[in-house]
Amino acid sequence: MPAEKESTTPHSHVPYGAEGSGFYSDNTIGCYNVIQASIPIVMDAINSMNLDTGRTFTIADYGTADGGTSMPMLYQVIKFLRAKYGDALPIHVAYEDQPVNDFKSLFLRLQGLLPMPENNSYFKDFANTYVTACGTSFYAQSYPPNFVDLGFSATAMHWLQKKPCNLTDALHHTSAGVPQEKQLFAAQAALDWEQNLMHRAKELAPGGHLVIVNFCVDEKGRYLGNTDKKQSMFERMTSLWRKLVQEGTITQEEFVNTTFINYYRSVEEVSAPFKDESSPVRKAGLSLVSVETKVTECPYWARWMREGGDAKVHAKRFIPTTRTWSNHTFLSGLSDSRSAAEKAAIVDKFFGMYEAEVAAAPADHGMGYVHTFIHIKKDN
Amino acid sequence: MPAEKESTTPHSHVPYGAEGSGFYSDNTIGCYNVIQASIPIVMDAINSMNLDTGRTFTIADYGTADGGTSMPMLYQVIKFLRAKYGDALPIHVAYEDQPVNDFKSLFLRLQGLLPMPENNSYFKDFANTYVTACGTSFYAQSYPPNFVDLGFSATAMHWLQKKPCNLTDALHHTSAGVPQEKQLFAAQAALDWEQNLMHRAKELAPGGHLVIVNFCVDEKGRYLGNTDKKQSMFERMTSLWRKLVQEGTITQEEFVNTTFINYYRSVEEVSAPFKDESSPVRKAGLSLVSVETKVTECPYWARWMREGGDAKVHAKRFIPTTRTWSNHTFLSGLSDSRSAAEKAAIVDKFFGMYEAEVAAAPADHGMGYVHTFIHIKKDN
Repeated sequence: MPAEKESTTPHSHVPYGAEGSGFYSDNTIGCYNVIQASIPIVMDAINSMNLDTGRTFTIADYGTADGGTSMPMLYQVIKFLRAKYGDALPIHVAYEDQPVNDFKSLFLRLQGLLPMPENNSYFKDFANTYVTACGTSFYAQSYPPNFVDLGFSATAMHWLQKKPCNLTDALHHTSAGVPQEKQLFAAQAALDWEQNLMHRAKELAPGGHLVIVNFCVDEKGRYLGNTDKKQSMFERMTSLWRKLVQEGTITQEEFVNTTFINYYRSVEEVSAPFKDESSPVRKAGLSLVSVETKVTECPYWARWMREGGDAKVHAKRFIPTTRTWSNHTFLSGLSDSRSAAEKAAIVDKFFGMYEAEVAAAPADHGMGYVHTFIHIKKDN
Repeated sequence: MPAEKESTTPHSHVPYGAEGSGFYSDNTIGCYNVIQASIPIVMDAINSMNLDTGRTFTIADYGTADGGTSMPMLYQVIKFLRAKYGDALPIHVAYEDQPVNDFKSLFLRLQGLLPMPENNSYFKDFANTYVTACGTSFYAQSYPPNFVDLGFSATAMHWLQKKPCNLTDALHHTSAGVPQEKQLFAAQAALDWEQNLMHRAKELAPGGHLVIVNFCVDEKGRYLGNTDKKQSMFERMTSLWRKLVQEGTITQEEFVNTTFINYYRSVEEVSAPFKDESSPVRKAGLSLVSVETKVTECPYWARWMREGGDAKVHAKRFIPTTRTWSNHTFLSGLSDSRSAAEKAAIVDKFFGMYEAEVAAAPADHGMGYVHTFIHIKKDN
């Protein structure tokens, strides 16, 4: 078995919601906003390419989940390409995620057979467009060589190929205190970033571009749910999960096992593989065009501040935005000696506690997004 | 909305079995055999192409269902290509079916995360291979222009884009008696075949080949389940379904509504679009290399004749091979005033009656396959 095909582990969230329901996108309004903020970079990338209408222009969306969050961006990009190059340019959107991903919803939405919230299907609206799906992890080479003209990935590549270790005193590396554990996470993140880039280097056509929007710790130490609010999301999660240990609902071992297998790379960490001309990534033809960080306000928090209302209703609306991507991690931390129902009840209880905290002080809680916006180019 | 994207209707079977279970393949051993019989033609096609290892070789499998039946053929083809061209040739297998198709099983099987009956995964065994899925009907252009080097389709393109009319005195066009209805079916089949070919002509790269293995009525009037056995499958289905009308279980209207939306094209009908140099299909660059018919024995019947045993056990094994692809048609013929449970019970009863007939005279029943093996080429 070729080495690059061995990994299939959770580099992406397991969406919390039923197959075909399109649950993920409906609960992650903020992700739309983040992707909207990437449009200027995507447009820069496209404008710097000289497209030939005799050749298909292929856009790959890595870690797409149900494809909902990138839909408005893709619509705008394709509309622009149609205006500039006319109908003659074939446009192929190649969606990538894990093999168990809900590609069915994606195909149905694009074909107009499932409702598409707040946006239209470029596939229905523009002739000469094509859509495919790929269930091969981006920690392998997902596509054939030179297949991709524009690679895109939003809020997906922070997931690591594997858990380097448990975090004994925290759930997430950003709040980890044990130096050795922090180092193992940083090392895994560095390795994964380089491997990821090496695979993309092969898939990108000469002159192709890659726009990656990814969770980070920014220059001011901000990261997801830890921006300018009084409360920090991971700190609250850690504290409440520990409370369940103290009251005897879960064990200390389960607390330790509950570890987010992801990493929020800093600008320095993102830039590292590009610094040295003789690095594998540079030798593979990739260079870093730009990287910047940006905070995207939590839309739930903003709505509360704007509209106010019933704090309990707000909390019920807010919690799912923290739960879609984290639910699986909490479940997987629990002992397999517990039944599935028991596990679910514990995680329900946990999120209920979090919900009560949010309801008690809505203005103090938010899940603001902090991203690096990364623009990479492959040599001609 | 571009015209070619309007159709999404049942051109393919709706598999009878749970998502992710790989049910379809396990119950259609005969389909494996049919595809195995296509290998010499596929090899001829490949040997006539001069492949360039600097360019990805793309194989499209149209109407693939869960991909199980074409797996051994693809393994053999890729093994051959590896032997001839080495690891340097990138090989991309692009699977096509309806948007609701079970691509999840397919990805999981290829990655070795679900058992793969009786064969290995070429994706795991051979480096530099890639897999994607497409949920765009083959009655539209599924892929970008010049995307496909070798198109393949087995036992899928007999499904029509839409039902031209109900068959008032039959379930299937092969036993229809009303000339006008037969004509409408033939006309729809001719239109669909031409449209299908026109789409493939665009997708095929110059010099590309297309191998289509499709249900037919052969020179001797044989067709699926109507070969050399005493009983003919569609005749038995029609008779038993009519019996349900006579005993008052279903209505005459439901009988009329129960119509297989497919057509078994003869060699003449397959060849028609290629005859005239000025035809759209010829002008699009396609020509017919060869077309031949072949009967593939019913493996269940053959096993019974070889091994004998308990006739009831045999009948229970045999019925699913007729049911996987027909179950949906029987359900869809029933009135929507019935509950889903009521519909299911009626169809269960129907197949129970069929099973009893088979158990009473196993040697008289078989679902022998009768196919055209079609080899088409696109100009260089």
